[in-house]
Amino acid sequence: MPEFLSLVSPESALDRWLQALPPGRPLRVEQVSIDSALGRVLAHDQHALEALPPFPRASVDGYAVRAADTFGASASLPSYLSLVGEVRMGTAPAFALGGGQAALVHTGGMLPQGADAVVMLEDTQPAAANELEVLRSASVGSNVIQRGEDLQPGDLAIPGGLRLRPQEIGGLAALGILRLEVVQRPRVALIATGDEVVPPGRAPALGEVRDVNTLTLAGLVRLAGGEPSPLGIIPDNHSALEAALVRALPDHDLVIVMAGSSASTRDLTSQAFAALGPPGVLVHGLAIRPGKPTILAVAQDTPLIGLPGNPVSALMVAHVLVVPMIRRLLGLPPALLTPTLRARLTANVPSEAGRTDYQPVVYEIRDGEVFAEPVFGKSNLIFTLVRSGGVVRVPPEVTGLPAGSVVDVVLFESWQGIGSDA
Amino acid sequence: MPEFLSLVSPESALDRWLQALPPGRPLRVEQVSIDSALGRVLAHDQHALEALPPFPRASVDGYAVRAADTFGASASLPSYLSLVGEVRMGTAPAFALGGGQAALVHTGGMLPQGADAVVMLEDTQPAAANELEVLRSASVGSNVIQRGEDLQPGDLAIPGGLRLRPQEIGGLAALGILRLEVVQRPRVALIATGDEVVPPGRAPALGEVRDVNTLTLAGLVRLAGGEPSPLGIIPDNHSALEAALVRALPDHDLVIVMAGSSASTRDLTSQAFAALGPPGVLVHGLAIRPGKPTILAVAQDTPLIGLPGNPVSALMVAHVLVVPMIRRLLGLPPALLTPTLRARLTANVPSEAGRTDYQPVVYEIRDGEVFAEPVFGKSNLIFTLVRSGGVVRVPPEVTGLPAGSVVDVVLFESWQGIGSDA
Repeated sequence: MPEFLSLVSPESALDRWLQALPPGRPLRVEQVSIDSALGRVLAHDQHALEALPPFPRASVDGYAVRAADTFGASASLPSYLSLVGEVRMGTAPAFALGGGQAALVHTGGMLPQGADAVVMLEDTQPAAANELEVLRSASVGSNVIQRGEDLQPGDLAIPGGLRLRPQEIGGLAALGILRLEVVQRPRVALIATGDEVVPPGRAPALGEVRDVNTLTLAGLVRLAGGEPSPLGIIPDNHSALEAALVRALPDHDLVIVMAGSSASTRDLTSQAFAALGPPGVLVHGLAIRPGKPTILAVAQDTPLIGLPGNPVSALMVAHVLVVPMIRRLLGLPPALLTPTLRARLTANVPSEAGRTDYQPVVYEIRDGEVFAEPVFGKSNLIFTLVRSGGVVRVPPEVTGLPAGSVVDVVLFESWQGIGSDA
Repeated sequence: MPEFLSLVSPESALDRWLQALPPGRPLRVEQVSIDSALGRVLAHDQHALEALPPFPRASVDGYAVRAADTFGASASLPSYLSLVGEVRMGTAPAFALGGGQAALVHTGGMLPQGADAVVMLEDTQPAAANELEVLRSASVGSNVIQRGEDLQPGDLAIPGGLRLRPQEIGGLAALGILRLEVVQRPRVALIATGDEVVPPGRAPALGEVRDVNTLTLAGLVRLAGGEPSPLGIIPDNHSALEAALVRALPDHDLVIVMAGSSASTRDLTSQAFAALGPPGVLVHGLAIRPGKPTILAVAQDTPLIGLPGNPVSALMVAHVLVVPMIRRLLGLPPALLTPTLRARLTANVPSEAGRTDYQPVVYEIRDGEVFAEPVFGKSNLIFTLVRSGGVVRVPPEVTGLPAGSVVDVVLFESWQGIGSDA
């Protein structure tokens, strides 16, 4: 029998697990096209190779001028400038601006040489043919975006280690970077166990149940940025499990074993982890509900986790521990800063001091207020979570939350790895 | 010149746009494998075809018993039962339980015929060979998950119209449903305009700029659940734009035109929309910053939107209007219930009454408190958003938010269509 360590808080369990990884292992990178870079983690800092914008641009529709020619201009005492041309969009003006001259320019158009300001259309009026009245004094640089005002050549444009959102994709396009290096998706092995577990495509005989966890966890792994690799269902047998782990370790960055439902299969997982070499099992038992019988290990420089067989427990613990580990393997900060929805509880949520509870809830808006109704599932089957929109975390220092109290609901969508990088 | 309607709030603009769509158009569906169903919208209600669980299961490790045999049992006055066997995981017990009998059963194991309760291991102790002392009275059904307790045949398991999360994937697996019908991704045409705009792969000459909006919007469309179809860059020319729209309309569910930066190209968009038939342009000008020069239309039963050319404005307006429209086209509730992060503003955010402002912010955690620093970008290039983690909405009824006030930050990740269905 393995030595049962005492129950550990989820925070310090994650900490032990992360600390036991070899420090400073370089991230594997791959090249992708900008079309498939969304959601990937940028491998290296991207610097601007050219100035952005690459030329001085008008920020309004109006007239390019020399500011000095307009000093003191007002509606009652306009400046008179001679119109020498129009800057066509997408072209460099063929003319330069001399003293006392103005040129029509559109928003985003390039300033002609010699111009240092733009007067808004509204602050002008036509005078004689090819002559313009300027009704307001312009100062140097007014209504102009200077060359390089957004980025100078060499400026850090997008820092490495960022998960690319639409705006970063746009930023890369602005810089003309259409191929880039991103961090490879961590390869996550998924091993189901349990003599009673059959593939979901097979009709279970009496006494058998379909494998729910492999597909559920594969979904969560994918959302968190990993590449799930389902390795099938292993019978409740030490040597079969150990052989599966030995096969999986070299090709994966994280190994997840989903226990069968009986307690003996959890001991099996722990023994199999211990047999893989140091440091071995780090945590066996979490002060968390659901998810207490969780096992964390590191062997051959690779993190391993044994999840409970109960689908609700497995998915909850995966949110709390697997998502941060995948983030770490991607080079992201493991902690997720999760936005929440304030809601009023409709029923008491019991808990025990010293234990962190994750209570699934349904939320509903009535008269503009958000209410959260706890979903209590005795059987703890996956449909408890299908019915739920999010969870309420009951911290270890309280013994439950009373009905009517205002709580922070973490929506599953935010929790599923799509939350923000703290 | 088109008739300029007065500025409209973003909420009523969205409302007009949605209302102008033909009601009750059926959603197009397609069949997918469960492996690629994550994030897709389930087309139809899924009912359970069988009971879940399909047989009565022990919810603890212990002994299957007839509850009546244990009535009155206690540590000082145990019930004595004879052990008749063990239920092996994954099998139906070959024996039935008679009066005065017990059988070893593991968590998740099937109850033998005749048993109606399970006594926990901890509430028993071995007596003579093949005899068991039960130290606690069990009631009928205790520690048993009944057949069909989670779902009865015919029960609604997963409602149609739900965007599939990992738990729904697991629920489908539990039901043995490995192929399913989902709503097709709305096809979203992306048309860039502007004589100054060149593809991002081409080195811009002086006066030209790279197309940033097509790739940015394509990313947002994809996150929201749509299928972007980039149709290239159209010159600032009425007939070219109208021809592009006429080509795009039949094959797309939504058409996005991204204006060039000059005001004249926006008029071009509005005129081209109007030429496509009724109801035509619905909104021209939003009471929003950034994003005022936005145009909403419906023609040939298809929604069209003209976005400002400024990349920050385009992306902000797309969050506010394009994401809800894509959700509507997917059959989801258009409104997104967006969780937020409470944060303290580090600087004043000026605004005007009657206008809704979306102010990009950087957030930072100092001493456990979240601070939001406004990112003011004069040039409004895409890097304003690259530097930002989220936005603060300044509602139309206030004239700015003072430094030090506590605000709700919407993180871009939550806003980008991955937020929850209200």
